[in-house]
Amino acid sequence: MLPFSVDYVVAYKIPSSDSAEAEAAFSQLITALSAVGFATEVRPGRTPASLLVFVKLASPALLQSQIYRARVQDWLFGVRPSAPAPSSNGNAGASHTQADMDRYFAEEEPVTEAERLRLAYELITRPKNEGGAGVTPRRGTWKFVESVFPLHDRAFNRDWISEWSRKYYLDEGDINLIRDRFGERVAFYFAFLQSYFLFLVFPAAFGFAAWLVLGPFSWVYAVVIALWSVVFFEHWKMKEVDLAVQWGVRGVGRIQLPRSQFKFEREGIDPVTGEVIKVYSPYKRLARQLLQIPFAAACVVILGSLIGGCFAVEIFINEVYNGPFKQYLAFLPTILLTILNPTLTTLLTNLAQKLTDIENYRTHDSHQASFVQKIFVINFITSYLGVFLTAFVYVPFGKILVPYLDVFKLTAQRFTAEGQPLPTKNWQINPDRLTSQVFYLTVTAQVVNLLTEFIVPYVKRKVFRTVERVQTEMAEKNNGGSDSSSPSRLKDQPEEAEFLERAREEAELDEYDVTIDYREMVMQFGYLSLFSVIWPLTACSFLVNNWVEARSDAMKIATNCQRPIPWRADSIGPWLDSLGFLAWMGSLTSAALVFLFRDGPTAAFTRSPWDISGWALLLAVLLAEHAYLLVQLVVRGLVKKLDSPGLQKERSERYAIRKRLLERMFEWEGTSAGLGSSAGEKITREVLEEEARKLSTVGGGAPEQL
Amino acid sequence: MLPFSVDYVVAYKIPSSDSAEAEAAFSQLITALSAVGFATEVRPGRTPASLLVFVKLASPALLQSQIYRARVQDWLFGVRPSAPAPSSNGNAGASHTQADMDRYFAEEEPVTEAERLRLAYELITRPKNEGGAGVTPRRGTWKFVESVFPLHDRAFNRDWISEWSRKYYLDEGDINLIRDRFGERVAFYFAFLQSYFLFLVFPAAFGFAAWLVLGPFSWVYAVVIALWSVVFFEHWKMKEVDLAVQWGVRGVGRIQLPRSQFKFEREGIDPVTGEVIKVYSPYKRLARQLLQIPFAAACVVILGSLIGGCFAVEIFINEVYNGPFKQYLAFLPTILLTILNPTLTTLLTNLAQKLTDIENYRTHDSHQASFVQKIFVINFITSYLGVFLTAFVYVPFGKILVPYLDVFKLTAQRFTAEGQPLPTKNWQINPDRLTSQVFYLTVTAQVVNLLTEFIVPYVKRKVFRTVERVQTEMAEKNNGGSDSSSPSRLKDQPEEAEFLERAREEAELDEYDVTIDYREMVMQFGYLSLFSVIWPLTACSFLVNNWVEARSDAMKIATNCQRPIPWRADSIGPWLDSLGFLAWMGSLTSAALVFLFRDGPTAAFTRSPWDISGWALLLAVLLAEHAYLLVQLVVRGLVKKLDSPGLQKERSERYAIRKRLLERMFEWEGTSAGLGSSAGEKITREVLEEEARKLSTVGGGAPEQL
Repeated sequence: MLPFSVDYVVAYKIPSSDSAEAEAAFSQLITALSAVGFATEVRPGRTPASLLVFVKLASPALLQSQIYRARVQDWLFGVRPSAPAPSSNGNAGASHTQADMDRYFAEEEPVTEAERLRLAYELITRPKNEGGAGVTPRRGTWKFVESVFPLHDRAFNRDWISEWSRKYYLDEGDINLIRDRFGERVAFYFAFLQSYFLFLVFPAAFGFAAWLVLGPFSWVYAVVIALWSVVFFEHWKMKEVDLAVQWGVRGVGRIQLPRSQFKFEREGIDPVTGEVIKVYSPYKRLARQLLQIPFAAACVVILGSLIGGCFAVEIFINEVYNGPFKQYLAFLPTILLTILNPTLTTLLTNLAQKLTDIENYRTHDSHQASFVQKIFVINFITSYLGVFLTAFVYVPFGKILVPYLDVFKLTAQRFTAEGQPLPTKNWQINPDRLTSQVFYLTVTAQVVNLLTEFIVPYVKRKVFRTVERVQTEMAEKNNGGSDSSSPSRLKDQPEEAEFLERAREEAELDEYDVTIDYREMVMQFGYLSLFSVIWPLTACSFLVNNWVEARSDAMKIATNCQRPIPWRADSIGPWLDSLGFLAWMGSLTSAALVFLFRDGPTAAFTRSPWDISGWALLLAVLLAEHAYLLVQLVVRGLVKKLDSPGLQKERSERYAIRKRLLERMFEWEGTSAGLGSSAGEKITREVLEEEARKLSTVGGGAPEQL
Repeated sequence: MLPFSVDYVVAYKIPSSDSAEAEAAFSQLITALSAVGFATEVRPGRTPASLLVFVKLASPALLQSQIYRARVQDWLFGVRPSAPAPSSNGNAGASHTQADMDRYFAEEEPVTEAERLRLAYELITRPKNEGGAGVTPRRGTWKFVESVFPLHDRAFNRDWISEWSRKYYLDEGDINLIRDRFGERVAFYFAFLQSYFLFLVFPAAFGFAAWLVLGPFSWVYAVVIALWSVVFFEHWKMKEVDLAVQWGVRGVGRIQLPRSQFKFEREGIDPVTGEVIKVYSPYKRLARQLLQIPFAAACVVILGSLIGGCFAVEIFINEVYNGPFKQYLAFLPTILLTILNPTLTTLLTNLAQKLTDIENYRTHDSHQASFVQKIFVINFITSYLGVFLTAFVYVPFGKILVPYLDVFKLTAQRFTAEGQPLPTKNWQINPDRLTSQVFYLTVTAQVVNLLTEFIVPYVKRKVFRTVERVQTEMAEKNNGGSDSSSPSRLKDQPEEAEFLERAREEAELDEYDVTIDYREMVMQFGYLSLFSVIWPLTACSFLVNNWVEARSDAMKIATNCQRPIPWRADSIGPWLDSLGFLAWMGSLTSAALVFLFRDGPTAAFTRSPWDISGWALLLAVLLAEHAYLLVQLVVRGLVKKLDSPGLQKERSERYAIRKRLLERMFEWEGTSAGLGSSAGEKITREVLEEEARKLSTVGGGAPEQL
């Protein structure tokens, strides 16, 4: 029967230790899926202990009914402006025939692939009492369900990648295509990336000119970039709403996806709806949310001391130390950072995940927002602290602080021959340090990142598969190689073989996490907004990088990840706040950098920190910030006045509904007159007008009373 | 026929110069009013040249139909969650009998007086092509229409005032009563006043304690007041939404009242709706809005030089000059201010009005918001500049600037005997100046204001009426006193006499302008937030003042003003921004004041301005501001999580609608099955479930495939 057009694949693992329990759960799985209307087919996975269940919504009528319900829900929550109904009769209260419905789905509002897959996934995972199969991968009864994923559409992916790699510029159609296939959440990421890419053209051009003409630390450049970031931020806020309206997902956040991990303290009766709701004390949650403060402090201390320490060691080795092995020791801080930074970051990210779990949110969105907040803190420190240290500690206070690096000298002294003084050179501040650091972060690190993001998973997969193959071969050898009744050796049907091979490959891929991609872009925006005044070519580098980034992210989705479940979204979510924060912060750092380095980096280095006039620095920062906030207010006001196509569309739909309803109201007045009800006078226009005419005679002659 | 229950009175003036035109327009007026369904009665006004037209909606059916339309419009604009309809049948598309409608208005949603009067007023003023009488007082054809006003309900007013004067505390019921009588716009003012009054209890108590224990310029007090103002501001924002929901006016701003003065450049076709709309170029408007910047600058220069000049003269006379007439000259600056300040303020307010007219807004709300912005600038300067000058110029720089006041000495010298030196005393800064100034502004000025607000219009009216009576008597004497055919001498019918006297009195009253009352309260809040750290008893004074204020404002409406037209509103409008601005500004000034005066005012005076550490001052201000913004963010987050009764009500209504609609959907599924349409299978639950059961057999035995 395979390959039928499969909706989802459920990867199931039967560990040899727990095989009885796993097999019982497996038969439960099949029953649960079938009970809600899925056709299932089971095939062996790659390893003997794994199974793949191919799942498909069995009847088109079931799909239609599900989609219709979902659309009605959208309408009830105000996501759609009008009720979903065949146009023959605009009234949800009347009855439609099946033919009506078929025409509605065929012509008026066809079902996109994303919509179908999303509803199928919801049907699989929704709790049983809400009409779903209640399958929650890796949890509870379903701990042996490794993943539930849709299969890639290889033909589409091939066209997609080849088209994008030949195109300079992605337009709305390209983004809409993604939306139809991978859902709004992924489409929003690409829309954001594309919008950011386009906006980068201006700072890239201006930055190039500034680099030629103005040089670094130009206040003109700083002002222009701050203005640009305000405009970009406000534009994106509008664009986001626009897209949400165009895609019919505006306000989709209101339809909250409950988290199945949510633990409720008690069931309460909602005073408003009378519905039974699950309640978790908000005070308890607040108390737990307060843990974010020590968490942020811990991040600052742990990552700060790591980065600060490596920073100090690096300065000592590169700029003070002059003894043996200098060329090798120079790698020490990099090695330390490369090993410790990811380790600590992973630890802290896990801690952030745990904290977010403890906060016990009821909905997926609030959970995700809280988690993003925490990883933003981690990423902020790891990404920007180094530059902050160089610009605001090393440069102004270097002359005072570097002598304290003698602690390293004393430590190093122990390892050298007794009595022999450690060879050092006379320390001189390195005026290019800041620029080269920014260059590293905005060019080298971006390229490295691009490569690792793409190549590491590929290599990982290759290695993993080789290891697995070797293991299987060894196991086979041990079994004698002739035991053809072993389930893993059950030969695939020839017509299914290729398809199954594909499915098995995809089962091993990672899930696509759009958060990681957002994080990368937001952090990049941060470099531009916070530090690009140091090196005005920053935006040029990002422009090139992001052209590649869009393609490589597409590649990643198409080949390195399982096909994402097409969730909906009506914005880039919590990242919007991060963007706003970075843009605001940029006004502070740019002002401070321009003030400190206005006479060129060398002057900044040689000046004593006590010569810096504190009040002037503070005044510069204060003025820059308030100018920024004022400009933001103005731009926000202007943007609000612009009419966006999305809001226009929404208005036009609302208008159409209004008009239809008003017409119906007049109809009512007409019919009620026609019915000739005996209960007194009828309200019709004619009656009213006649009445008015009659009445006008009462006071009509009034002037004569004079 | 009078006194019938009159809806509106139209005061009409026939000037002797233009009597032919005025009389023609008068008969047009009567025709226009009658044509839309008003019964009219004409009676002479107080003076011979004035007429009063008593107007009443002639038929209850017309009122019902108008109100029904307005409610449908509310629903269409999302102001009401559900369509207005008799509950027997929740469907706007079906027909209702008149009996249904009568029951609906009698039992389900009765019409409040405010609603009736509002709709009657709209019917009078709405353009003819939109179904109204198109009467626009004082403009165009209707330039002889002096005013259109509803009559006071004296019995209600008497009860209202007597109840409020006996009550310590106004509760929700009192505010709701106002809402039913005078509409939401006025009710919002009283709700705000009451909410502010209640919130004042805390700073009054804390301020009293601080006054006893901490003394002035305490940073503890400053921090507490800043926190309090954040909480108050955010609480009011929530409360405002709450009230709007409870009163069913949330989003009423979307139903824009067009300004009849709006001049359009061209008629355009709306790309969305296809409606013909009146267009005025937004670029032109923007260009004119930019005039606000020179306007604000002009305000600063004009009012600033007046206040600064008077300030300097005052200091010279009080603290430097010691010659003859000192006791009289001391009044000079006060006299100058008392004469010039209101004059200049009136001039600037007129200018602001003109500028706002030039900006040519399409809707009343945007016009009003723009006007309020401008008068806020004027009021900000006149109210606060004096204290700013004392605190941030006189105190720190007094020693340097006062010698420059010798210009006055030179001027004064001319008037004294030649060769005789002008007697001066040795100048010493007055350390109590700041406190006494704040005391004056927060106690004396408030009391004076309260009295003028109430007494001045009363006296004005009395004087005006006496003058008029004398004039009429003189005219009569000239006519010989026996000419009983003179229209003004037409004796009122005895049964109407008292009623007409009342109406004539009310025709002469001013219109009630809620903006003035808001302005007073917002400026008062500003003193508290900006300067109360100088004199912590400020809030105590305001607490007492505002208790009286609520009653005197009620009195003002009841006796000194025409009954207000009961407009709707869903917030306190543009004043909200002013409040937020003042609260934010308070964080700056309080920090600066505490920093400058932390060792007591005398120390602040004797210190040289060059001893003030600029960076420390800036740092204090900067930290205070950011702490303020952070606290605001946190409080905003917390307030958002609180559930307000209003939002609960909205949610519950939305839920009810959702539920009803869902039920109808299931009904539809039921009927479509029952109809047995031939067009294929029907979507019913049973069919779906059966299908699912059938399907489950396909993959059900899957585990056996192992």
